[in-house]
Amino acid sequence: MIIEEMTRDACIEFLDRIHLGRLACERNRQPYVTPFYFACHLGLLYGFSTVGQKVSWMRANPLVCVEADEVINPQQWISVIAFGRYEELPAGPAHDAERRLAHRIVSQGSLWWEPGYAKTIVHGNERQLDLVYFRIHLGQISGHRASL
Amino acid sequence: MIIEEMTRDACIEFLDRIHLGRLACERNRQPYVTPFYFACHLGLLYGFSTVGQKVSWMRANPLVCVEADEVINPQQWISVIAFGRYEELPAGPAHDAERRLAHRIVSQGSLWWEPGYAKTIVHGNERQLDLVYFRIHLGQISGHRASL
Repeated sequence: MIIEEMTRDACIEFLDRIHLGRLACERNRQPYVTPFYFACHLGLLYGFSTVGQKVSWMRANPLVCVEADEVINPQQWISVIAFGRYEELPAGPAHDAERRLAHRIVSQGSLWWEPGYAKTIVHGNERQLDLVYFRIHLGQISGHRASL
Repeated sequence: MIIEEMTRDACIEFLDRIHLGRLACERNRQPYVTPFYFACHLGLLYGFSTVGQKVSWMRANPLVCVEADEVINPQQWISVIAFGRYEELPAGPAHDAERRLAHRIVSQGSLWWEPGYAKTIVHGNERQLDLVYFRIHLGQISGHRASL
């Protein structure tokens, strides 16, 4: 197996194509990682979530890490890891344009039926649908491609 | 879509069956998440890695988070998230039994050909194969199963 490093451009291209990733955040030195759907637009990752632990932690510490991969088997895979900064796009005139953009981008990716949006039943109760839009500004990115 | 919470036992059963997950660690409030292969044995996750950023960060702060999922589509998936504590199994008589156990468990899972072990070429140089065995003690676990 050969593992090759990918250029930043190749990593961004990969993030343009992949919509499911994992988002890691932190509180009190405890990392936390969850799956999330995103859409990449001009080098920013757009996503949304219901209000919960993830959002509350990212509000307190906007340093995040995103990982996205495509694994065919243990010898053939691509994995891209990006450090980033969480920016919430709150309701209100200041962020209207960005929220519309986020909505449009995420809708285009057919991600409306993702967990963050669907009506869900947890503990027998319908879960509250307070949506939070956000985007991730990408810092250092590394990507690796393994092949035979 | 209905999202149901899974019991701890159901989460452990899932981790017994799934071998690819994501491991998040932290340094200076910056989370970092990478894919990793693991084998679950008696409620502990065994893995190994070459020495690198991940291992160096976990040595400094053993608080980690593991996520494993099985996504059929955005409406049908299982995701398990576990907080945990990294424990390295260094070479030497004190940990020989555990290292042999780790080796056996990981070998049984046919994970020897995973990225941590394979000879890899990075920047045109063959990567050093200093292997670190570790295990993750699981703390709080949450799991969710989405279905139609």
